[in-house]
Amino acid sequence: MSTGYFVEANAARLVKEYPLGKAFLEGPARLSSDALRALQERRFASLIRRGWEVPFYRRHWSSAGIEPGDIKGIDDLSKLPCFSKTELMASVEEFPPFGDFHGMDNGSKEWRSIILHTTSGTTGAPQPLFFGAWDREVQNALLARAYQLQGLTNEDVVHSTYGFGMVNGGHYIREAILHFTDAKLLPAGTGVETRSEQQVKLMHHFGATVIVGFADYILKLADVARNLDLVPGRDLKIRMVSGHLSSDGREAMVKAWPGAKAFDWYGVGDTGVIAAEGPEQDGLYIWEDAHLVEILDADRLLPVQDGERGNICVTTLFKNTIYPVIRFNTNDVSAMLPVSRETGINFRRLAGFQGRSDNMIKLRGINIYPTGVGAILGQFEALNGEFVCRLFKQGDQDELIVVAETKIGNDEGLDALEKVISEALRQQLGVSLLVEVVAPGQTAKLTQIESRQKPIRFIDER
Amino acid sequence: MSTGYFVEANAARLVKEYPLGKAFLEGPARLSSDALRALQERRFASLIRRGWEVPFYRRHWSSAGIEPGDIKGIDDLSKLPCFSKTELMASVEEFPPFGDFHGMDNGSKEWRSIILHTTSGTTGAPQPLFFGAWDREVQNALLARAYQLQGLTNEDVVHSTYGFGMVNGGHYIREAILHFTDAKLLPAGTGVETRSEQQVKLMHHFGATVIVGFADYILKLADVARNLDLVPGRDLKIRMVSGHLSSDGREAMVKAWPGAKAFDWYGVGDTGVIAAEGPEQDGLYIWEDAHLVEILDADRLLPVQDGERGNICVTTLFKNTIYPVIRFNTNDVSAMLPVSRETGINFRRLAGFQGRSDNMIKLRGINIYPTGVGAILGQFEALNGEFVCRLFKQGDQDELIVVAETKIGNDEGLDALEKVISEALRQQLGVSLLVEVVAPGQTAKLTQIESRQKPIRFIDER
Repeated sequence: MSTGYFVEANAARLVKEYPLGKAFLEGPARLSSDALRALQERRFASLIRRGWEVPFYRRHWSSAGIEPGDIKGIDDLSKLPCFSKTELMASVEEFPPFGDFHGMDNGSKEWRSIILHTTSGTTGAPQPLFFGAWDREVQNALLARAYQLQGLTNEDVVHSTYGFGMVNGGHYIREAILHFTDAKLLPAGTGVETRSEQQVKLMHHFGATVIVGFADYILKLADVARNLDLVPGRDLKIRMVSGHLSSDGREAMVKAWPGAKAFDWYGVGDTGVIAAEGPEQDGLYIWEDAHLVEILDADRLLPVQDGERGNICVTTLFKNTIYPVIRFNTNDVSAMLPVSRETGINFRRLAGFQGRSDNMIKLRGINIYPTGVGAILGQFEALNGEFVCRLFKQGDQDELIVVAETKIGNDEGLDALEKVISEALRQQLGVSLLVEVVAPGQTAKLTQIESRQKPIRFIDER
Repeated sequence: MSTGYFVEANAARLVKEYPLGKAFLEGPARLSSDALRALQERRFASLIRRGWEVPFYRRHWSSAGIEPGDIKGIDDLSKLPCFSKTELMASVEEFPPFGDFHGMDNGSKEWRSIILHTTSGTTGAPQPLFFGAWDREVQNALLARAYQLQGLTNEDVVHSTYGFGMVNGGHYIREAILHFTDAKLLPAGTGVETRSEQQVKLMHHFGATVIVGFADYILKLADVARNLDLVPGRDLKIRMVSGHLSSDGREAMVKAWPGAKAFDWYGVGDTGVIAAEGPEQDGLYIWEDAHLVEILDADRLLPVQDGERGNICVTTLFKNTIYPVIRFNTNDVSAMLPVSRETGINFRRLAGFQGRSDNMIKLRGINIYPTGVGAILGQFEALNGEFVCRLFKQGDQDELIVVAETKIGNDEGLDALEKVISEALRQQLGVSLLVEVVAPGQTAKLTQIESRQKPIRFIDER
């Protein structure tokens, strides 16, 4: 018999250490920078001790010439080498099938409750993710903290479009809402788990008030609803959308779902939520009681100035059981915002997700992110927001063609539209791209928007 | 802030009241019939009190002329009217969108943590299911009890093919394994959540030792594995399958997965697991500390003799919070087995699932269940087990055609095979059916075996 999960999760202690709701706003949110630092140092010390017990870290840290006594506090963090998905997959390759980064069978204590999932995998093979009961429930609580800060109440009916199966996302969101909020959840999943028409009917039938998921699919659902004559704002009274918005994503979202406020949050499978917008919608508060975030330049992995773009590198303070995460280079690009004015939450803020450094296209010396292309396409009324970028060789030269969908399947004026879009891309990105405008739904096969958590926006055909 | 889920679930109390593993075998399993009855009476009294607080029961019981004092104990249970999916859907219709059977907002206490799912729906529209934290975790523990009795250990890697999304199944199995066992879980889901080839590779990569899910799809995975040159028993060392076997299902299963023991269990979305096979594989032990099971004749809903077939009618003793289940007529057909000889578990036993009474086909006076047809088809080496029954009108007469797949897509001798099968069906069922043998995969579109938890085996085309 095992009640290990509940014992290890220790919910009573958990909400004291990582409070949410009012207790968060009156607790960690108000800490002075000294008090916050003291809290972080305490958690960091325990994390580093745990790190040394895990073969993966022992290997990498020792190769970098680090010894156990060298890391005395957070100031020494930058001495440790970063790792990314590349090192994790190499670990799986070398120590199949689980790798040596989880620490399941190492350390001062035996870890019994293990949750295994995979990433949704924007790039390459799915990566295994491991959670213990404690860190799993802490990250659940931290997501509930984000939703509640954004206005989720006990009365809400939340429609979730995050996918299930091996992929972590849907399970994570479901646990966060069920374990740490009193809202009701409709765990619809992706379009292959519940067909899009069915999703809309479900929201209508059960009176959904909140939608959570990836922005692209939530935008698509608004179109599907209109086609079913269920008008967003009138028949579907959604008052809040919380997902992962691109830089201009909020505008498109509130247009698609009139009456809704749209919120952004950021996290990766390995760490859970890292940062989330508050009611001010002015940057994403980093849950600094739970994570240390650095922004590093993509080439040398050295810190950049506040406001400058770089890779998000995360150290997760509460993952001191299964799969500690210490200097994980996510390859996601963002920037630290200048220190906040008075909002009642003293945490530093992150700009939203601005692309992936390993998805960056270098075209004639200019860096292009598919997300940046999407933001420019969003300026065009005639487009529905769906697109894909294809990189190919023409003679010796790389060429990028942007394939974008119109709102209505109508061939008139497409040539002129393509020219205007091409000119906007050239002016705003500083490089000439090819543009092809196609009918609605024509990119779905390439982007796999129905079946993937995160649609594919870039295909390298070289 | 809410830690309501963990407080309401009360895991420490839960495993005392509904033990599993060794504590089950030394506790509830050994109760004398008097001691068991006393335990049931105590739980039943609390359940009936709760029932009167729920509008759905108040309506139905009052219409049947019952008053609160009338139900003094389990002996009075049969005075209460049964209900089925029909009454639940009528309740949803009358009190949209949630119906009035959940009791969320009624009673002596406020119920905060609500889990909402739907049934997988073999028949008609999906039905909403409601759980509170307490009953959800009790049913999780009771399924873990079943798996552990069948031999699940902490070392196992369990591959689950139960689907997710709105459907309850996959979530239920995932919670049971993660919260109450120390096995590792691969929550693959249905064939649309993780493609079948991918499922096989996943099992191989992570070294799955146990498969759980519906028998049809687990059998299919063995074929898919062989096509990928991953030989069950050699490359996929599965030692246990736990699912929902039809009467001859065990034989087919251990043939498909050599080296595996195959176990049956029975439950419905409304109640969780009700009964499960033990190591003797001789009938399904009813978890009598958790459920009262009656077998009723389908027409008059009166008790039948032990050994006789009838509808399984369930009263779930631990669901005294959200959606109490009191005399739920599942329309699933089974029979009570004679009192067990000495096995160390004193609970009564149920024969396995033997079809649905609302799926029963009456052909020229003979009752036919699609599951019964499947059992006969299973006797033929040349068939791969996939089939569908189609009922249609020919002139004034109903005709049933059985469409069955061969193992190899080879046209030779099909006529002769069809004749032999037709003769076997006629002899064993007592009525003549039409038979059509088709190539492998040809029934998949009708049965929807890739996307449905339970494939469709019967289509009424009249």
